[in-house]
Parts: sequence; structure tokens; C-alpha cells
Amino acid sequence: MDNKIIKLKSRFPQGITNFLILNSANIAYFTGFSGASALLIPQDGESVLYVWGTNFEQAKREVKNARVELLKSGENRFQRISKDIEAAVGGGTKLSVDSIDIENWRVLAKAVGGEDCLVMGGGVVRGLRAVKSSDEIEFICEACRIASVGVGVAYEVVEPGVSEQEVAAEVEYAMRKHGSGGVAFNTIVTSGASSAFPHGSCKSRTIMDGDLVVVDLGATVEGYRSDVTRTMVAGKISGRQQEIFDIVRIAQDLAVKSIRAGVRAVEVDAFARDIVGRAGFRDCFVHNLGHGVGLEIHEAPVLGPDSKDVLERGNVVTVEPGVYIVGFGGVRIEDTVLVTDEGVEKLTNAPYTLQSARKI
Amino acid sequence: MDNKIIKLKSRFPQGITNFLILNSANIAYFTGFSGASALLIPQDGESVLYVWGTNFEQAKREVKNARVELLKSGENRFQRISKDIEAAVGGGTKLSVDSIDIENWRVLAKAVGGEDCLVMGGGVVRGLRAVKSSDEIEFICEACRIASVGVGVAYEVVEPGVSEQEVAAEVEYAMRKHGSGGVAFNTIVTSGASSAFPHGSCKSRTIMDGDLVVVDLGATVEGYRSDVTRTMVAGKISGRQQEIFDIVRIAQDLAVKSIRAGVRAVEVDAFARDIVGRAGFRDCFVHNLGHGVGLEIHEAPVLGPDSKDVLERGNVVTVEPGVYIVGFGGVRIEDTVLVTDEGVEKLTNAPYTLQSARKI
Repeated sequence: MDNKIIKLKSRFPQGITNFLILNSANIAYFTGFSGASALLIPQDGESVLYVWGTNFEQAKREVKNARVELLKSGENRFQRISKDIEAAVGGGTKLSVDSIDIENWRVLAKAVGGEDCLVMGGGVVRGLRAVKSSDEIEFICEACRIASVGVGVAYEVVEPGVSEQEVAAEVEYAMRKHGSGGVAFNTIVTSGASSAFPHGSCKSRTIMDGDLVVVDLGATVEGYRSDVTRTMVAGKISGRQQEIFDIVRIAQDLAVKSIRAGVRAVEVDAFARDIVGRAGFRDCFVHNLGHGVGLEIHEAPVLGPDSKDVLERGNVVTVEPGVYIVGFGGVRIEDTVLVTDEGVEKLTNAPYTLQSARKI
Repeated sequence: MDNKIIKLKSRFPQGITNFLILNSANIAYFTGFSGASALLIPQDGESVLYVWGTNFEQAKREVKNARVELLKSGENRFQRISKDIEAAVGGGTKLSVDSIDIENWRVLAKAVGGEDCLVMGGGVVRGLRAVKSSDEIEFICEACRIASVGVGVAYEVVEPGVSEQEVAAEVEYAMRKHGSGGVAFNTIVTSGASSAFPHGSCKSRTIMDGDLVVVDLGATVEGYRSDVTRTMVAGKISGRQQEIFDIVRIAQDLAVKSIRAGVRAVEVDAFARDIVGRAGFRDCFVHNLGHGVGLEIHEAPVLGPDSKDVLERGNVVTVEPGVYIVGFGGVRIEDTVLVTDEGVEKLTNAPYTLQSARKI
């Protein structure tokens, strides 16, 4: 953990002596603890974690790389932090902040002596978090292993007569039993026409014979997430379903194979989009190709047409092309992969079969 | 749904002709749709929901009370919104915003002609959301009913030899099978010494004979949440455990009975805190008494020592005193209740028993 704070210290923006972390995922990244209110990282010396009463004792027990301070009921945390900075380094210094809403920005600016004393620095933390350390990769690998178990269960339970909700119940149960700390995001099980909605949620709808069923799920391990999608047909597969599936499958496979450190994310997206487009489905691929995964389900880097990111060794990203046809249904295939110098290591492992297993 | 937008229009701040909603829970509140990027509510005329490609088709299908507009890849949504406002009402008007981070604030300010054209208006939406409509109450009631089923399962499965994770697996599975759309928050099952940490998470730890076990869970129905906690002992109960449990039980029961529309939230908190304090545990009650519940697990009103809220008919709040003793364990008892003119309607229903059921 200390390593991450040291890395940030080596990247402090010019003229900055203190970095204030307010985003809870960022705080968890640096300290391993979620449930704190703020983390103050000075260029020199010990970091300070500010925690309200609810989580104070737990933070004292669990946090090893920062001094844990109690925020008292009624206390203005920004005034408190400002005083601590003044006591440590005197006035006239600039403070970098990772992320803050406009109302808290004003309170903080007042506390530290004006907006000129504040510099937004979220991009630095975003960049750090995008490159995973070996302990983070270990947690994500385990979360991917558990998610793969969930996919296996989906193939077993998806059949005509079962509801989307029941599928979600079974896959989440299996992931919990295999050690997941919860769901990485609200499990998506969409069937029939609603499979054409990429982020549709599970309903009580009963899966019918011949339905496309998109199952998108993830597990968590120590707060780190995984993300995997398979599309299957309950019952008889139509020619059109198979055709679309094959295109998405090829696009996903080749996109995965096109990734390695140094490649621009926008190119990977374009590569997959081109394959889908040449098959006549360009307008049906309505989202980015993928996104980084870590403590949050969507983080850096972005694999999309507007991305400025260049892939680096240690990025963990999803690769998830999809084709969605309103009134017909959708197909998405997604894996979570680790970017290496030579290519990728695929972290989710599940069969690419269109047929749900009970029908084989 | 339309009703909620009409209510907001009747509360527009002075001189405001357009209200921009960016918070996703607020957007879901007004439109019933989660997955949009922004909602523009003009004082006069039709509201506009801005949606990226991923969720565009689904929004078109599901949203009935706003015109759905596609945001295109690469598009600056704030410039687009600003243009739409200008086209509708001309320049020189002020825009209210519910919530926005400092970086987007600057982009939006630039788009609409400067910071002077922007007014923060989140408080108005907070106030609207705190008072639930009959359809919202129906969803929350159902979510509470499902959560109560989860608690029943917890009483059945908590016994020495079972892990915290396994308890979470069983209660979440039961809630899903009873129609929950997912978890309202990451289920908390803490046992033994870790039960002294109010927001501790489930671990692989095996529950031991005589452990205090805190189970805090919630379900969702149409995005609306529930929140309930029971504390139980796996195996033999000690005198001290029973003593602390009885105090928390009395504090919770009397606090619930002290609630009705018109009462100040700070007084309800003080009332419970006083009972716990008189028993000698003031410093062990380390969090607020409760919070509003709805589309988010923590929303208005707040029941705590710093709250400015006055309870209103239609508020849905938790009442959850706790006593936490480091090295010994913790006890928390929580229900979700609906505030009425005469008192409350308790929405979660589960026994208040310290003994986990298998041991009775």
C-alpha cells in the first residue's frame, strides 16, 4: 500500500505540497480502507486519514500507512484539514484535490484561503490507478475466476421457463459461495427483445424458447472487480442469431489479440468496430469497446472512439463488442484482460458457446 | 412520474427558467429511468432527457414524460444542452443545477455564458425526494417485505461453523428469489470482535459459539431500497450481550415511537442517544440514529445530532441505534419506517430476538 502513496508523491504537480484525496475509491486505493472521509497526503511526512465516528475504530485497526484522525460530529472537515496543513507547512502553499463537487469546492476554497490555492489533480490519480500492481492483479484475477464460475452456472440454468431474476439469483449465489465479496455491479440478465438494451436490468420475465439471453456479471475480491458477459440462446438457435453471434465473437477475439502495451485504445476500438461495421452492423454497436476495471467497474483506460489513452502494461480492461437490434435482441461477448508487453492475459475464462448448456 | 416534474416546476428558484438534473438518482426519480446523462426541465414545456448510445433505445422505449435525445460520441453534452436552452428561450436566462463536480461546473459555465448564469438547486430536489409518493411507498414496502424475508433466513443460518460470507450468500439468494432486483447495498455480516465495526464487510471468518453477529441487509424493487439490521448470537448468550441488546432494543423501540410528522429529526436522535447514554454507552453509539431511504440507501432526511431536518409525512427513514465495544463486539437494531401524521408505519418486520433460531 505504501508504494502507491510514494508513487503519487513522485508525481505531485509543480508547486504542490499537499494532495487531498476525497473520492472514496481513490482513498481505498491508497489506504486499502473504504469508509473514510478524506486522505491528506503531504509531499513530506505522514499521510492523514480523516474518518467519522462510524468507521473510526475500524480504520485505526486496519489502516497501516496513514495516521487515522477522528472527525467529530458537527465538525467542518475542510476547516480541520486546512488547519492541519497550516500547522505542518505554514500558509501560502497550494493544495491539489482529486475530485470535488462545486459546493464542497467553495467550502474548501474558503478554508484554504481562496480558489487560487487549489489545483485539480484527479488525472494523476486516474493514471496511477490504471496501472495495476501485483497485489491488485492478484485480487482481480481471483474476482475473474469467481465470475467465470458465475458464467458456468448461467449456462446451466438458462432455459425456457426460467425467469431472468432466477438466473441472477443462481449466478450471484454461486459467486458468493466461491468467495465473492458481493456483486461488482447489478447483474444484467436480459432476454428476448430486451437483450437489445445493453444495460437492461433483470426482470421477472420468463425466458422463452429461442430467446437470446445476455448475462453480464462480476464478482469482487478485496474491493477489486471483474466483468464478463456471455450471450446464449435458450432452446433452438436461429440462423440470424448464429450469424450475429459469430460476428461479435470474431470481433471480440481479434480485438483481444490486437491489444498490447503501447497500442492506442482508440485503435483497438476502431479495429473491433470495423469488423462489426463491415458485416453491416456498425449502427448496432452502440457503446465503447471496453473500459478499465479495478476498485470501480468503470475506470481508466477507456477503449472507445473518443479515448486519448494509450494502453500500458498492467492495465486491466474489458473487451466487449456488441450488436443490438431493437425488436430482435442483442449479442455481447466480454472478457476482462490484463495488458502485457506482448499482448494480453485473459483473466475471465468461460466457453464461447451460443447454446445454453442444458440444450446441448 | 409526471407529477414529480410538475412539483419541481412549482418550486423553481426565483428567476430560473430551466433546471438541469445531472445526478443519476435524481434523473431516475423524475423519469423512472437510470442510465441517462442529463435531464433538462424547462419552466414551460417538455423536458428533455439526454442519453448516450448505450441506453438510447431503452430510454426511448421506457421514458414517457420527457423527449429522449441521443448524445453522440465526442459530443460535449453541456454545449448541446446550452444550445437547446437558447433555441427554446433565448439567451440571458439562469439555469439551476442539482449537483456537479468542479470540472464539469467550469465546462457548463463556459457553455451557458459564465458562472453568473448558474445557480445550485440541489436542495429543492433533496426536499422533493424526501417525501415519498404513493407509488414510491409501494415499491419501498415491497423492498422491505423482501428484506424481512432475508432477516428470517439469517436467523435460520447463523450458527457456529458457518462463515459470514455464507450467511450473506443465503440471505441474498433468498431476497433474489423473492423478487429483489439486487442488493440495496453491500450486505454486512460481521461476527465476534468485528461486529464492533458498524460498516464492516463480510469476510471468510467462521462464526464461533457465543459470537455476536450483526446482519444488515436490504433489497431493491424498481430501484427503491430497504434497510434492516438485526443482531443475533450464535450459540450461548452472555449476560453482557443480553444487557447491551436490551438497551439497544429499548432505545430503538422508543425512538420509533417518538417519531411523527412535525418532530425535529435532531430530537429523535437525541432521544435514542440519551437512553443509550444513561445506560453508560454514550461513547459507544458512534453514528447517526438513521437516514432517509429511497432510490439511494442514504438520502434525506438525516436523523442525527447535526440534522436540520423536520420530519414530514411521507418520509421513509431508518431507526438504527447501536452500541459498539472494541474487542467485545457490537449490537445494532434497525428498521425502515414510514412517517405519518400520527406516528410511523413500520415497513420492515422481523423478530427482535438475540438468539439465532437454530439454537432456540
